[in-house]
Amino acid sequence: MKTQVAIIGAGPSGLLLGQLLYQNGIDNVILERKSADYVLSRIRAGVLEHTTVQGLEKAGAAERMHREGLVHEGVELVFDHKHIRVDFEKEVGKHVVVYGQTEVTRDLMDARAASGGLTVYEAEDVALHEIDTDAPYVTYLKDGTRHRLDCDFIAGCDGFHGVSRQSIPEGVLKTYERVYPFGWLGLLSDTPPVSEELIYAKHPNGFALCSQRSTTRSRYYLQVPLSDKVEDWPDGRFWDELKNRLPPETAAKLVTGPSLEKSIAPLRSFVSEPMRYQSLFLAGDAAHIVPPTGAKGLNLAAGDVQCLADALCDYYRNGSSAGIDGYSERCMKRVWAAERFSWYMTKLLHTFPDADDFERKMQEAEFNQLELTENAVKTLAENYVGLPY
Amino acid sequence: MKTQVAIIGAGPSGLLLGQLLYQNGIDNVILERKSADYVLSRIRAGVLEHTTVQGLEKAGAAERMHREGLVHEGVELVFDHKHIRVDFEKEVGKHVVVYGQTEVTRDLMDARAASGGLTVYEAEDVALHEIDTDAPYVTYLKDGTRHRLDCDFIAGCDGFHGVSRQSIPEGVLKTYERVYPFGWLGLLSDTPPVSEELIYAKHPNGFALCSQRSTTRSRYYLQVPLSDKVEDWPDGRFWDELKNRLPPETAAKLVTGPSLEKSIAPLRSFVSEPMRYQSLFLAGDAAHIVPPTGAKGLNLAAGDVQCLADALCDYYRNGSSAGIDGYSERCMKRVWAAERFSWYMTKLLHTFPDADDFERKMQEAEFNQLELTENAVKTLAENYVGLPY
Repeated sequence: MKTQVAIIGAGPSGLLLGQLLYQNGIDNVILERKSADYVLSRIRAGVLEHTTVQGLEKAGAAERMHREGLVHEGVELVFDHKHIRVDFEKEVGKHVVVYGQTEVTRDLMDARAASGGLTVYEAEDVALHEIDTDAPYVTYLKDGTRHRLDCDFIAGCDGFHGVSRQSIPEGVLKTYERVYPFGWLGLLSDTPPVSEELIYAKHPNGFALCSQRSTTRSRYYLQVPLSDKVEDWPDGRFWDELKNRLPPETAAKLVTGPSLEKSIAPLRSFVSEPMRYQSLFLAGDAAHIVPPTGAKGLNLAAGDVQCLADALCDYYRNGSSAGIDGYSERCMKRVWAAERFSWYMTKLLHTFPDADDFERKMQEAEFNQLELTENAVKTLAENYVGLPY
Repeated sequence: MKTQVAIIGAGPSGLLLGQLLYQNGIDNVILERKSADYVLSRIRAGVLEHTTVQGLEKAGAAERMHREGLVHEGVELVFDHKHIRVDFEKEVGKHVVVYGQTEVTRDLMDARAASGGLTVYEAEDVALHEIDTDAPYVTYLKDGTRHRLDCDFIAGCDGFHGVSRQSIPEGVLKTYERVYPFGWLGLLSDTPPVSEELIYAKHPNGFALCSQRSTTRSRYYLQVPLSDKVEDWPDGRFWDELKNRLPPETAAKLVTGPSLEKSIAPLRSFVSEPMRYQSLFLAGDAAHIVPPTGAKGLNLAAGDVQCLADALCDYYRNGSSAGIDGYSERCMKRVWAAERFSWYMTKLLHTFPDADDFERKMQEAEFNQLELTENAVKTLAENYVGLPY
């Protein structure tokens, strides 16, 4: 089998890239280790920046998002007992759209099916070959048979643990990493959100986030020690602690219900650069991870694949390799800015077990900046709604 | 001897407080451990915020500062090889005045002499008594004789190592501290400044600052390890390393000359609160220290004593203790903001020996924010020119 671009991974970044290439007449095949149902069962982010919305529009997969997505014009930040509403529209004239990553993935799958693009699900034992040549290929096992997919380029959209980054020879990539001393325990429930907007709350016991996927489905998070397990957190304990960490007037409005899903995710900052090695391009989580505070993960991935689609179009249409040669540098500027913002938001709003008194005071002073100067609020808003890709 | 307010320390904060009280008819005596010449020989900061300028105006000691002080409408920041000019006037419509602390002190001494206020220099063995009553007094040794100064209130303007803070019983104050793993080696020379504006430069070898006291007197600083001694840095080595840390086009313009003074100062963040204990008020360095990056030390002190003068006027004129009761809280808001800014500037522009790769990238990303969003520049400018007291 032969294609122009082999895409590894059918998460939102691989699917979005596939559609953007398809719209530009570039043939591509997606290989995914898991089943479509498994991919759709992963509960992830739900805040889309304008750039991500534009990407979905370009991909022809924005219709339901525009219909069902919730426009959020601001966000609420709480630090101990202080509240600040960050009004995105007022501060920077922009907004974000709340629409679950699962829904984005489903819409992209539907668009791909409609366009007749090939996605090979349950492709096992994916391996990348000859990536340092201009005739790379990918092998995989499907239903017990080994297949070979020849291509011009490979796009590694297979996440942090995927095979793509690991296929790059040792010594090529420089990596940067920070592991945080806590995780997020997430709970999904079919209950109306406690607030129309997201609430990020810092409490001495730890961070809490009131998020949502729709007007009837809520997603809440609690900062927990990494040693905690989901079993330590029966629903009752989760709701009690969430109420405890929220301002009383918010807690009083909280509607609880049985959890549909509950899981603990560690928080990590990770960057490997460059994002290209010869015929292989990395995009999204395959190249970088942000802690979820600030909702940048999906949005960074969507920016990467739009850059990559632009670059590949330029190559196939105009015979120019300027785009693919500049891909990593172009992405990296936005990646580091998002890494900084995610790190800032994480440090601003979590309780760090090892912080000394001075550091706690600096954290509080950082929050108070938002009260003291509107310029700090504008900076936060500008980063939250997203820098251009 | 009896007075209304006994002021400990004849540095700029004690002298400014004395004049502000005098202008409002409140009697005061200043006790200073050292001689006037010694006080004037201390080389300190030279960047005055608008609030400090206003304080000197209220004290009747602003005339020469207005004549000789240099209005600085911006500052230059350099990170490795990137330059950013922060234009205070453009960003926030304000400026700072460069005028040496030594000159401020001299002007305040002159104003005090003109107003007939008593300053006892070389007052040894100063001790505070009965500060938890409304009849405190201070004793000191002058020319071999012990004296007693009775007063209503004591203002501790005697710096970090002074006796005032140490006179407060153990357990009353909560302190916060951060010691940085480097110091600043300062050099004063009668050479024209390399630039009309201050230059803050981050270089892999460490921070450098091009500062000035006048159009003919420069003050330069280099980040050095705490283990270094002044003897390790003959003038030639200082100038060579300064040139090395500056952008080549700046280094080419540097005029060198013999040092008038050279000294190494450690960098420290320190806060003790509250700033009042019964009849004793702390102001300036007696209560808090900032690292000099951001030039906040003198300006914080000038804010404190203006608050204190307001509070004491309110007490003596209107019989209200609201001002003195609210003194610490009012000052602390500004103190913590300045501590945060000084900490931010220090972290932004120094080379931290123990930083890992991720932290170095975050430092760079923090600097790049200033290129990415003007709101971040405005936030920096707003803090640099000073928050209102």
